[in-house]
Amino acid sequence: MTAMFERVALIGIGLIGSSLSHAIRRRGLARQIVCTAQSEKSRDTALRLGLVTSAYATAAEAVRDADLVILCTPVGVYGEIAKSMSSALKPGAIVTDVGSVKSAVLRDVGPFVPKGVHFIPGHPIAGTEHSGPEAGFAELFDGRWCVLTPPPGADQAAVDRLVAFWQACGSYVEVMDAEHHDLVLAITSHVPHLIAYNIVNTARHLERVTDTEVIKFSAGGFRDFTRIAASDPVMWRDVFLNNKEAVLEMLGRFTEDLTQLQRAIRFGDGTTLHKLFVESRATRRGIIEAGQDTEAPDFGRHGSDAAAKGRSSKPAGS
Amino acid sequence: MTAMFERVALIGIGLIGSSLSHAIRRRGLARQIVCTAQSEKSRDTALRLGLVTSAYATAAEAVRDADLVILCTPVGVYGEIAKSMSSALKPGAIVTDVGSVKSAVLRDVGPFVPKGVHFIPGHPIAGTEHSGPEAGFAELFDGRWCVLTPPPGADQAAVDRLVAFWQACGSYVEVMDAEHHDLVLAITSHVPHLIAYNIVNTARHLERVTDTEVIKFSAGGFRDFTRIAASDPVMWRDVFLNNKEAVLEMLGRFTEDLTQLQRAIRFGDGTTLHKLFVESRATRRGIIEAGQDTEAPDFGRHGSDAAAKGRSSKPAGS
Repeated sequence: MTAMFERVALIGIGLIGSSLSHAIRRRGLARQIVCTAQSEKSRDTALRLGLVTSAYATAAEAVRDADLVILCTPVGVYGEIAKSMSSALKPGAIVTDVGSVKSAVLRDVGPFVPKGVHFIPGHPIAGTEHSGPEAGFAELFDGRWCVLTPPPGADQAAVDRLVAFWQACGSYVEVMDAEHHDLVLAITSHVPHLIAYNIVNTARHLERVTDTEVIKFSAGGFRDFTRIAASDPVMWRDVFLNNKEAVLEMLGRFTEDLTQLQRAIRFGDGTTLHKLFVESRATRRGIIEAGQDTEAPDFGRHGSDAAAKGRSSKPAGS
Repeated sequence: MTAMFERVALIGIGLIGSSLSHAIRRRGLARQIVCTAQSEKSRDTALRLGLVTSAYATAAEAVRDADLVILCTPVGVYGEIAKSMSSALKPGAIVTDVGSVKSAVLRDVGPFVPKGVHFIPGHPIAGTEHSGPEAGFAELFDGRWCVLTPPPGADQAAVDRLVAFWQACGSYVEVMDAEHHDLVLAITSHVPHLIAYNIVNTARHLERVTDTEVIKFSAGGFRDFTRIAASDPVMWRDVFLNNKEAVLEMLGRFTEDLTQLQRAIRFGDGTTLHKLFVESRATRRGIIEAGQDTEAPDFGRHGSDAAAKGRSSKPAGS
């Protein structure tokens, strides 16, 4: 593929920044990739892994001459970064980001984007529980959705270019307004992470069940929560601080529904429990049909290898 | 390995029953395996897959001459089954089960076990979100814990035999009392399933976010909850109806902790959020070190293949 951009500046080179470098290089989407990282260690790692040709300590250095600037840090520092790089941005450049909240990004970054630079926030809905420049891989975005939230009046040609870029990184792209994005993600991502963090916390502070027991007997479901609760703490702190209203709204709904379930358990209402459990399967089927997960059994054992082996150990003809 | 039992009767042939058949045959632990299943379809499937040599409609037929009887149905029907098979049990036989609750099993099955038959409840902490006789595989129990809860005064030789059986199926074994089991599993399995079912339910009934959006953008965390919320509805209904006290106790703790988190979000208390998110990582590390999960990144993309490919696509020398 012909390069879509001359110089891409990745502001931050953690899981998402490093995965973007892999995805860009896989298809030759840029002639040059540079990055910034706060720590010298991360800059050295980025260079050593060949993720970038130059690694800078400041955003202002990295964005010089860049025609695509992608903020890949926790959203809590966006405002400060935007301010520091503002005067170095190249006219006609696209500034975007990968943050999990979007209204706060418009609020924090928007005021620092000069006229003639196109600001189009984005959010690739993909990730793993690992962090840092060594955690990235090219396929992270394949088959996943990336949501773009251009502000009113955004330049359509710039939006189209960014759509094409994410598609070339393997993503599907959807455009919506920032407020709606924040509401959708509150239920599909933010509240799930919050309750995963919460149950891990609850389990750690029980008097009658030891930490060792929690760990030993975690294969019954708990284990899967610890996986998402191992995600980057700074990133997630910033998500909750910057999507407060939507998270509190969805959390209120979650608690209301949980109270109903609690009551059904207390009064032995098996009919309500069964009905609700059956309905959950429909959502699961929808996710598999939409290609957002596989049908391979995925808990209670080591990875999918055992399951694959197990299936092949069935008698021939089965 | 020399057969440990002459005839094993699997009462129910779903995910766990069929996996037991695979595990028993893998190591030749029994000379004969028979089962019961309510539906003719399941009996036919069990025979067709070679899981058993005979499949019966009633437990009384299956347990005749069996020296090991394993209840593998939802726990809600244990009492009825125990009553129906009671007089057909062979003196000296071991009766056990695989249910996720243990006090209720002692209560429901205990009274129907004749003198001279050894009743030792058990619970292999392993599973997948799939159900039925075709879902089983031999490796399901490998490296997982199986908890046995022999009642006071249980025959030690019979307990030792059952421990050896589960070890030969690939499990680690721990013996504890039924009440403690129920408390530990409430936090490591029952409450996690309940909150997974609950958030799927919440997401289905929102006015401002469509089902299609929930499904499309599920890769941000929600998707992992739908997986465990796809588990067998009847089995889980019976778990909640039969471990009420422990589940309500743990749910109370969960809600208390969640309220604290909700308050931290409302008042923008990033320090509390960050501290708690950092602590969660320690539990995750403990689970990986205990061999109860792998470090392979496991969400945000299709299975572990993409991650493996991603890692190998790094520049040489990384």
